[in-house]
Amino acid sequence: MDAARLIRIDDPGDPRIAEFVSMRERDLAGRGEQFIAEGTVVLQALLDARERGHFDIVKLLLLENRVGGLADLIARLDPAVPVHVAAAPVLDAVVGFAMHRGVLALGVRRPPADLASFLAGLPDQALVVACCGISNHDNMGSIFRNAGVFGADGVALDATSCSPLYRKAIRVSVGAALHVPFCRSGSVEAMASAIVGSGFDLIGLSPRGTVALEDYRPPGRVALLLGTEGAGLPQAVLDRVTSVRIAQAPGLDSLNVATATGIALWRVAGAMGRLP
Amino acid sequence: MDAARLIRIDDPGDPRIAEFVSMRERDLAGRGEQFIAEGTVVLQALLDARERGHFDIVKLLLLENRVGGLADLIARLDPAVPVHVAAAPVLDAVVGFAMHRGVLALGVRRPPADLASFLAGLPDQALVVACCGISNHDNMGSIFRNAGVFGADGVALDATSCSPLYRKAIRVSVGAALHVPFCRSGSVEAMASAIVGSGFDLIGLSPRGTVALEDYRPPGRVALLLGTEGAGLPQAVLDRVTSVRIAQAPGLDSLNVATATGIALWRVAGAMGRLP
Repeated sequence: MDAARLIRIDDPGDPRIAEFVSMRERDLAGRGEQFIAEGTVVLQALLDARERGHFDIVKLLLLENRVGGLADLIARLDPAVPVHVAAAPVLDAVVGFAMHRGVLALGVRRPPADLASFLAGLPDQALVVACCGISNHDNMGSIFRNAGVFGADGVALDATSCSPLYRKAIRVSVGAALHVPFCRSGSVEAMASAIVGSGFDLIGLSPRGTVALEDYRPPGRVALLLGTEGAGLPQAVLDRVTSVRIAQAPGLDSLNVATATGIALWRVAGAMGRLP
Repeated sequence: MDAARLIRIDDPGDPRIAEFVSMRERDLAGRGEQFIAEGTVVLQALLDARERGHFDIVKLLLLENRVGGLADLIARLDPAVPVHVAAAPVLDAVVGFAMHRGVLALGVRRPPADLASFLAGLPDQALVVACCGISNHDNMGSIFRNAGVFGADGVALDATSCSPLYRKAIRVSVGAALHVPFCRSGSVEAMASAIVGSGFDLIGLSPRGTVALEDYRPPGRVALLLGTEGAGLPQAVLDRVTSVRIAQAPGLDSLNVATATGIALWRVAGAMGRLP
C-alpha cells in the first residue's frame, strides 16, 4: 500500500474527520443520505454495494494498527477517497468511546428516484419486503438480515419506518442493509398502491389470516407487508392485502416481526423455487 | 385490597428490599434459583407459572401509584408474600435508575430434579428445544418466545447456556421464560444422551443439512438442538443428530439462531399436527 495515501490525524477536533465526532450520540442516518459504517465486515459490504452502484464511500477513519490488515480493502477504494489514520487515544476521543474495531467509513447512498421506478427495475419474478412503521433499529436490522439470507430482491419502507443505515441496524443486519436494495417513500397507502400497481401480490401476516402460509401459492411477484407489532394497518391498505396466517399455539403473545419475516420469506422464497 | 397488607419503604437501604438494590448491575439470575421479574405482564406470567408449580413469589416491590391498578394481581398472591410499596424517588434510589414500570417481583424457581426426569414427565408426543452455548440474553429470550408461540413442551439447556431468568431474557421472551418449563444440566454430550435416551429424534440445523426442513417427517418426540452461531458442536453429538437444512440464498451470512428456531419450530410443530 502507498503509505503516502494515509492522512495522519493527531487532533480529535480536526475538521477533516468531523462526521465521526460523538458517533454514538448523533447518528447521521435518517438525516440525509450519509451514514457511518463500522467494522471490517461492513466496510467490505459497502465496497461490494458501491460496485453495484448503490453507494459511494466518502472517507475512512482507521485505527493505525488496523491499516496493515486492511490493505486489500483500501486498494479497492477510488484513489480520491481520503484514508485518515489515528492512534487509539485520538480515535477514542473523536468517537466518544473506546473504539476497539477501529474501522470507520463515511458512506453516502444513491437512492432510487421513486418507488415505482425502483419496483420497475426488479425482475419479472420478484420477492420484496415492505415495511410500515418499523421504527426499532434491531427489528429493521433483523428484517434486512432475513431479506438477505432468503434472497429478497428489495425492501420498500414507508416514511414512518426508520432508516436501515443506522449503525445498529447495519450491524444487526450483518451488512445486509448495504446489500439488499431499498427505497423509502411516503405513506403506507401510497406504498401499497405502488406495489399493487407494479403487479405484486401484497401479502400481510396475521395469526387470523385467511390463507395458511403453507398453502399460499405465490404468483410471479410477491411483496410481504410488515406492520408494527400490535398496531394495525389502515383499512384501505388491509383491503388490498392477501391475509396470510402463520399458525401459532393458542394463548401466548404473537411472534416478533423479524422472526415472522424469516418464516414467511423462507416459505415464500421456497415456494417460488428461489432457494437451492 | 387490604391496605394493611402494604409495607411502606422510605429508606432505600431497608434490608427488606435488599435483593432489588442496583438491579441493573447485579442480576440475580445465574447465581442460584432466585431472579427478578419486572413489569405487569411478567408478574402475571409469574403468577400463572406459580399456579403450575414451577415458581414461587418471594416478595414484591411496587411504585406506590401502581398499587391500585394491580389489585387483581395482588389478590392472587399467597397472603404470606410481603408487598412493599415505595415512592418514585425511593424506588429509583433502590434500583439505581428511573424505574418507570414500577412493578418488581422477587421470584424463585423450583427446578426439575434432572433432565431425564424432566423429559420423562413430558407427553408421548413432545416437542423440545435444546440449547448448547446460547449465552446471549437476547437470543435466549427470543428462543423462549418462539418456543412459547409454537407450543414447545420444554427447553433443555446445557451448562454453558445462560439462564433464561436474566431480566433482559425474561423481557425479550415476553414472559415465555416463565411459561415454558426448562431444565439446566451439564455438558452438551450428557444433554444429548439424555434426550436420545428418552426417545427423542434430536435434530440440528445447518445450511448444509442432509434433510430439507420441509421434507422432515417428525416422529412422536422431537428435540431441536441449537448451537452457538459460528461455533460447531462436538463430533460425538453431531453423530447423534439428524441434520436438517433450512435452505438459504447462496453467499450471505447465515440466519440468526432465534430466527432459525422460529422457522424450524413452526414447520416441525405444524408437521406434528400441533398447530391450529
